[in-house]
Amino acid sequence: MLSAQNIYDVIIIGGGVAGLSAALYSGRYHLRTIVLEGRSPGGETAVAWMIENYPGVPKIDGYDLVIAMREQATAVGSVLLPSEASAVVQAEHCFTVVANDGQEYYGKTLIFAHGSRRRRLGLVGESQLTGHGISYCGTCDAPLYKGKRVGIVGSGDAAVKAAELAATYAEQVFIFAREDALHAEPTNQEGLKKFTNIEVIYQTEVFELLGQNQLEAVKLTRAYQGNVVFPLDGLFIEIGAEPLSDLPRSLGVTLDNHGYIEVDPMMKTNLDGVYAAGDITNETGSFKQDVVAAAQGAVAATSAYRDLGQHGSEVCLVHALPVVKSE
Amino acid sequence: MLSAQNIYDVIIIGGGVAGLSAALYSGRYHLRTIVLEGRSPGGETAVAWMIENYPGVPKIDGYDLVIAMREQATAVGSVLLPSEASAVVQAEHCFTVVANDGQEYYGKTLIFAHGSRRRRLGLVGESQLTGHGISYCGTCDAPLYKGKRVGIVGSGDAAVKAAELAATYAEQVFIFAREDALHAEPTNQEGLKKFTNIEVIYQTEVFELLGQNQLEAVKLTRAYQGNVVFPLDGLFIEIGAEPLSDLPRSLGVTLDNHGYIEVDPMMKTNLDGVYAAGDITNETGSFKQDVVAAAQGAVAATSAYRDLGQHGSEVCLVHALPVVKSE
Repeated sequence: MLSAQNIYDVIIIGGGVAGLSAALYSGRYHLRTIVLEGRSPGGETAVAWMIENYPGVPKIDGYDLVIAMREQATAVGSVLLPSEASAVVQAEHCFTVVANDGQEYYGKTLIFAHGSRRRRLGLVGESQLTGHGISYCGTCDAPLYKGKRVGIVGSGDAAVKAAELAATYAEQVFIFAREDALHAEPTNQEGLKKFTNIEVIYQTEVFELLGQNQLEAVKLTRAYQGNVVFPLDGLFIEIGAEPLSDLPRSLGVTLDNHGYIEVDPMMKTNLDGVYAAGDITNETGSFKQDVVAAAQGAVAATSAYRDLGQHGSEVCLVHALPVVKSE
Repeated sequence: MLSAQNIYDVIIIGGGVAGLSAALYSGRYHLRTIVLEGRSPGGETAVAWMIENYPGVPKIDGYDLVIAMREQATAVGSVLLPSEASAVVQAEHCFTVVANDGQEYYGKTLIFAHGSRRRRLGLVGESQLTGHGISYCGTCDAPLYKGKRVGIVGSGDAAVKAAELAATYAEQVFIFAREDALHAEPTNQEGLKKFTNIEVIYQTEVFELLGQNQLEAVKLTRAYQGNVVFPLDGLFIEIGAEPLSDLPRSLGVTLDNHGYIEVDPMMKTNLDGVYAAGDITNETGSFKQDVVAAAQGAVAATSAYRDLGQHGSEVCLVHALPVVKSE
């Protein structure tokens, strides 16, 4: 129930890079800050394996990067909780977040930073092999496959771009497309012609992953050169992502056609006191990277700080709130 | 003179955090990349002293952060040169950059990342004491002055905001305003009233810095409580910054009223093939931070990579260029 102890200046939903960066800046602004990390602390980054494109950090396991950010955030007084937000309601100058720990948290401002979920194939062993041959980010991991044999699952722009980048490193790249055509933009498809080491295998899906601690091969739904077992060093699964847009949608936050949150350059949404950062926003389109999420978290916290400076004296009227719990 | 050796996919002007991050991403995209670092490699960050708000890096000297980024950029094949760009000319699908090393560099794309210059007071010892009591960034360094006595030079929004943030850490904060009023936005000035530990000293300037290896006091142009010597642990100089806008302006890049480059969320300027990143852009207004610059560099390089994928086959017509050197 309501007490001063659970009224916060900033409630951050999501404990990935965007949320943790927001918590770092928010804490440094001396704002009373809580992060509802949810079931997957560190988000997609925590399971990203080796990261080599975070500027200033030459090479770091995604898990370690997230640990460093968590320590920074808590060092400045921000509180991280493993609770997951399940509903959000707004009243005057105040937001109530209902969490799966049975608690209600009251915030003067709210930052959505709970990202998107990369689509998985849903195959046995897919989680265990992630970071050991399986990747969901061509931009991040293509350089790991120098001189190797790499597969790409997908037929859209992300798949084609991942193939083109991978081909500049790998010996041979194969795109597995479910249908008999690719769906990427014409200019992207045109780019494929520049590469002699990319082959598109149509009407073919990957239905089994082979390898214990490291991907060794996949099984295909259609034989390739007489064989359904297809040896591979790496497989990029580029079949899109889904923004976790239920909570912002329920609050009335404006989303784009794909469900990503619309923000301005200062990470403000259409609602006063509500900001967003990281993969859940549409600010940089399909380019989703840790450093971008970190920057957006910093910007979102700064906007919250500035807006609180202007409205700080108004009371968070939590006692007047009719909280509706969604199941 | 013209040879294939000095035709690049990407020329990055400026070797601060934005430029180095762009070079990291550009190199990973296998684009032939050069960074013209100019006279101050690492830019403002290299002289920023201790940085505690770069997400993922708990505490690092600005110089070391820049060194790490330089190593990352060169490890992926990007070339860093101490040369400074002195003129830029555009012809079809090609930009010619004239540098102070007497060379001409030809680029299919161009990223402006040469930042802005924080205004200095111009006092004796100001450079040596920077990072040792003198700071130009309240957001960055306010937490260093817990329980201390801090001065702020300036009367605009940056000065007032720095004072308010510093006051949440410091014992006592003094704003030295040249005139008899502050020029900050009314809402920001209103915020000052919340603090009992901020005092505005009007019609007073700092004209001398005292202290050898650490700031100890300043001398004021007008006696305060009978004394012109004013002991201080820290002094924030918040009198604005000037974007280095001569080169982009000469090329026809659209600037805002203050001389900062207008960019879209993908860091594109109004000119095809020309991008910008970091403090020289107006994307996040007055909020200039390393992590934002790093993200913008990554985004700018990604836009260059995508555009080159679409126009890559067009020839960089450098032989047709009439290069006009500016003095």
